[in-house]
Amino acid sequence: MKHFSSSIPNPQLLVRPLVRRLHAYVPGEQPMIKGLIKLNTNENPYPPSPKVLAAIKAAIDGRLRLYPNPTAERLREKLAKFHQCAPENIIVGNGSDELLALATRTFVEPSQQAAGRMKKASRSTVQFFTPSYSLYPVLAAIHGAQANAVGLNDDFSLPSLARLQKSRVWDFNAALTFITTPNAPSGRGYSTAELKALGHAQKGVVVLDEAYVDFAEDNALRLALTSPQVIVARTFSKGYSLCFLRVGYFVGHQDLVAAHHKIRDSYNVNGLGQIAAAATLDDLPYYGVNFRRIIQTREHLSRELAQLGFEVLPSQTNFILTRPPKLSAERWLQELREQKILVRWFDSARVKDFLRISIGTAAEAAALVRAARRILAQ
Amino acid sequence: MKHFSSSIPNPQLLVRPLVRRLHAYVPGEQPMIKGLIKLNTNENPYPPSPKVLAAIKAAIDGRLRLYPNPTAERLREKLAKFHQCAPENIIVGNGSDELLALATRTFVEPSQQAAGRMKKASRSTVQFFTPSYSLYPVLAAIHGAQANAVGLNDDFSLPSLARLQKSRVWDFNAALTFITTPNAPSGRGYSTAELKALGHAQKGVVVLDEAYVDFAEDNALRLALTSPQVIVARTFSKGYSLCFLRVGYFVGHQDLVAAHHKIRDSYNVNGLGQIAAAATLDDLPYYGVNFRRIIQTREHLSRELAQLGFEVLPSQTNFILTRPPKLSAERWLQELREQKILVRWFDSARVKDFLRISIGTAAEAAALVRAARRILAQ
Repeated sequence: MKHFSSSIPNPQLLVRPLVRRLHAYVPGEQPMIKGLIKLNTNENPYPPSPKVLAAIKAAIDGRLRLYPNPTAERLREKLAKFHQCAPENIIVGNGSDELLALATRTFVEPSQQAAGRMKKASRSTVQFFTPSYSLYPVLAAIHGAQANAVGLNDDFSLPSLARLQKSRVWDFNAALTFITTPNAPSGRGYSTAELKALGHAQKGVVVLDEAYVDFAEDNALRLALTSPQVIVARTFSKGYSLCFLRVGYFVGHQDLVAAHHKIRDSYNVNGLGQIAAAATLDDLPYYGVNFRRIIQTREHLSRELAQLGFEVLPSQTNFILTRPPKLSAERWLQELREQKILVRWFDSARVKDFLRISIGTAAEAAALVRAARRILAQ
Repeated sequence: MKHFSSSIPNPQLLVRPLVRRLHAYVPGEQPMIKGLIKLNTNENPYPPSPKVLAAIKAAIDGRLRLYPNPTAERLREKLAKFHQCAPENIIVGNGSDELLALATRTFVEPSQQAAGRMKKASRSTVQFFTPSYSLYPVLAAIHGAQANAVGLNDDFSLPSLARLQKSRVWDFNAALTFITTPNAPSGRGYSTAELKALGHAQKGVVVLDEAYVDFAEDNALRLALTSPQVIVARTFSKGYSLCFLRVGYFVGHQDLVAAHHKIRDSYNVNGLGQIAAAATLDDLPYYGVNFRRIIQTREHLSRELAQLGFEVLPSQTNFILTRPPKLSAERWLQELREQKILVRWFDSARVKDFLRISIGTAAEAAALVRAARRILAQ
């Protein structure tokens, strides 16, 4: 901007040092390659239900000029009925990402703020297992909190309570612990019994991030309604094909939920997202069919890839983590991309030998298997 | 929740003391009275353009399963063309409310964090004039920052720079200063010259909150592109009839804008909001007609109310602040409500003798005048 005057020496200095030190946000890859099969961001391959699309269309009129319901009242009532709890046990967010950020600000003290108090480290600690959702350390950094990253077992299972108690790294007093269940990027599912034991052992809040739960055998929602320190996070993005509209929610003790309401934006959930999510709950059988199709495709694809020499980890999600044969995982990423198939590879120690592949349609899975055969035949 | 176990003595204690002390959020009044004329929340009485409605409808299909563009790229490009700047000068938010909260977290240190540093009070200060947007002190409280509220002149004009320099209350080093321009709830407009002088005198960041600028004679957008410490906030809610979809934006120096990008949610703006806002910029003449109609209705209504004995303050917005005759303002609120007309009354010292009335259609304004006549004749 040539026309800026230079009265202020350096605009960067107006920004908090904490924010200056953060890395710039890098948006995910959104290539514009025609005919590309996109298996890199765990989106659902099936569209929302026709009834949901009709409900949204029916709301596209002059009423867009009005503010949406500030507490997503109707949606919370429907969710409460769905989960057999009260609307006061639920807060809806602009995607579950907003709620994970709100939880950090609700429960965790910025580091310097806790100075001089008892257990100061724990009060400022955001704790999570690795590998899991890469957002958690980012949320800690943005808030000026401490991130306590503790490794999962080699097979991505949860360390036992006994093992955590013996370890010096796990913090049972951490203000906030995030657990992705089923886990991403491994796809591994965790039993409600072990989550319950871990939740009860924590003195702080435990958020069970169930973004992929619709593709799993079990869920831990009841813990959010029986253990006052446990919150369950859900989203309409993955299972319910509504990424575009940004709707997620927390279920938990009403005192914890009320605290989030105090610090959120007044109109945090757009009106069409509220309408779409409410209509989704009126047409659950449509989605149940899709969950089963995705699970079938996942199991079929896993077998096919195993026959080609891929090591495929068991998955309870809409993606698989797999160690490909012959070439490096990074090289497979490139080779598949040349065949117009986009998958995900993470450049981090624990998973750099793996590819994460979202489960698309049966046709997309078949195309992936054909591409893998061609690559192996080269 | 009867079924909660009592292993944790009090879930409230899991919440940060700062958050516990905040008052619970009270959502705005949304009465379900049939035939009610709603002039209480400054919504635009006219619908979005037919082309905007068509653009949204055309996007309601299977693509809702995909994530929206994480940086609102196409919308930022259009806004950049509109404002003759670069996309890097713009960040789009989930309503401008999200951006006002992000600015607080970008520029202001929580109180205890600044301890021991130079000018510690200023680094933790969110400054604003009163009366203005009631969100500003809430944002300061949520962040653990200090709110410095300084009164406007009796006629709601800005205190002169000379007067602020003589006063002991105004802080020229405040990390962040919010100015609602034109002002709410008074409707008073401020000249770009005085905003420029004030902006240049501040050592910290100044956000000019232009939510109502489409109904004003002037705007200060150019200051955001020439003064590195000045940011201008705009919204698609008021002028462009899109409250329901939550789209606002900041224009400012690219270093300040980049800092907000670092700490926002990855997918903070829903996809249909992005599409609606982009389509809005393709049909500006439609909105220009509405701006003029609302301004005409405002001027006509102001004259009519003045003839009935109301003191009407000059307005540059889509509402008027007016001191009603004979009865108290609070009583007028109730009397008008009985006539099925909802206006706004604030229970605060500076404006408790006034009503704030949103400018609706000409027919709604006429109904208001008839109701006022009936009340005066009682």
